[in-house]
Amino acid sequence: MEQLSAKPVTVYAFNGSNAVEKQDFLATEEPLEIRIEYGPDHHRVIKSLSVTMRTPGADEDLVRGFLFTEGIIRHPAELKAVRVMDALPGAQDEGNIVLAQLDPAATFDIQRLDRHFYTTSSCGVCGKTSIDAVKMAGACNVVKPPSKALNVDVMYTLSDTLRQAQDTFTLTGGLHAAALFDFSGRLLAVREDVGRHNALDKLIGHCTFNNSIPLNDAILLLSGRASFELLQKAAMAGIAVVCAVGAPSSLAVATADAFGITLIGFLREKRFNLYTRHAGL
Amino acid sequence: MEQLSAKPVTVYAFNGSNAVEKQDFLATEEPLEIRIEYGPDHHRVIKSLSVTMRTPGADEDLVRGFLFTEGIIRHPAELKAVRVMDALPGAQDEGNIVLAQLDPAATFDIQRLDRHFYTTSSCGVCGKTSIDAVKMAGACNVVKPPSKALNVDVMYTLSDTLRQAQDTFTLTGGLHAAALFDFSGRLLAVREDVGRHNALDKLIGHCTFNNSIPLNDAILLLSGRASFELLQKAAMAGIAVVCAVGAPSSLAVATADAFGITLIGFLREKRFNLYTRHAGL
Repeated sequence: MEQLSAKPVTVYAFNGSNAVEKQDFLATEEPLEIRIEYGPDHHRVIKSLSVTMRTPGADEDLVRGFLFTEGIIRHPAELKAVRVMDALPGAQDEGNIVLAQLDPAATFDIQRLDRHFYTTSSCGVCGKTSIDAVKMAGACNVVKPPSKALNVDVMYTLSDTLRQAQDTFTLTGGLHAAALFDFSGRLLAVREDVGRHNALDKLIGHCTFNNSIPLNDAILLLSGRASFELLQKAAMAGIAVVCAVGAPSSLAVATADAFGITLIGFLREKRFNLYTRHAGL
Repeated sequence: MEQLSAKPVTVYAFNGSNAVEKQDFLATEEPLEIRIEYGPDHHRVIKSLSVTMRTPGADEDLVRGFLFTEGIIRHPAELKAVRVMDALPGAQDEGNIVLAQLDPAATFDIQRLDRHFYTTSSCGVCGKTSIDAVKMAGACNVVKPPSKALNVDVMYTLSDTLRQAQDTFTLTGGLHAAALFDFSGRLLAVREDVGRHNALDKLIGHCTFNNSIPLNDAILLLSGRASFELLQKAAMAGIAVVCAVGAPSSLAVATADAFGITLIGFLREKRFNLYTRHAGL
């Protein structure tokens, strides 16, 4: 079996007092450098934007989603193309550098890359300023409410559906997943990655490519815990319902509340906790 | 109950067709800005170094560990003090800005902060260059081997011991943990955080403070999966044995192999997988 997202490995499996050598698979983790090309036709500039450790396989989705959820592009049309750069002769990068080419008409401000987004002399650093920064980055101030009500019995089916769709997780036990469902519980798309933020960027990148954002009639399911960063990305994409198999953090709940997102945690079998009350539940 | 690392919340707990309102706790997630003060006595400079989303409560440990595992300081003595900066009047930061004061004699190169550590025109970007970057950042090229052999039965006790020590996880279900044990299975220290890299930085920061690095006779247990970033930090601290309750990634295994670290994954009850064979197992 050959695929980008898993690598074969020989392990010694210990079980009680026995140990046997066996073949297994590891989730692939490799660096990806994202470079950005921007500016008018007569003055194109290329800058290195970020390096992320990711699972190879949906790099174009990842780049699209990253640029969108970080507020570097505000509309899919601002991104003209994503090109995988050829490895240099003798180099080992094998597709680990991608070039995101912005449309010449796109307004790109290199200052937007400044990760110290919140610093002003008056406001300090706190959860509220983090949420304000997401608003400033271009998220709709309030996510558009869904047009239908959520159904509790549909919610109980989502975890099983996701687990069955997680190909590489089944093989390696080592990947996070982000999945989108419609309100009848139908799986629309799923993406996996060693990094949970990457899995969500890939999923959102796939959706921006399909012009299906905003996603106010979709349910996002996260295979792990729900952090601020994941709610930030959901808010940027306009996702109205976010479910996590694990626990949400305090700032994830505050962010969901600020944007009108329905946030569900500990979604396992026929149970879940609802943290922000919306969407008809 | 009042503590920094958990916040009370009202949730609607759904169970089958029932829903009841109940009180619960969330793992606290708040931004922390790390500023660094460096340079000779007559020319001190302050720069903002990073912002991380963390669980408050062991910020000084976190800062020490972050500076050490990122290679910004190479010896605990290079860090003179870590000060929590007062909130500005009316500000909401409440201790979310800390100032790391380097010793005037410490050589600090602002270039070391460049996250694009690997970029040279010849080598490309791949797992190998990521590992080389850790070596260049000052990790011992090979972690010093332990002076004793690992005992399989001791390994089987570690997960239970960790779980009993995870105070805030028990309360919230929402925190990663990193713990150190000696080879007889005695818990030496444990730290929790919403971010697994922060939990490990806190633990290593605590150890640098106690001058107990390198840690070649200690076992590190991670409550989740083992990624490159966590193995990188373990290598910087000289930890010879790393165990994870979850799966390791391909680059985590390669990094363990490159530094002579014994890497164990899926450590649950009386089972585990051994990925790199060292330490007498």
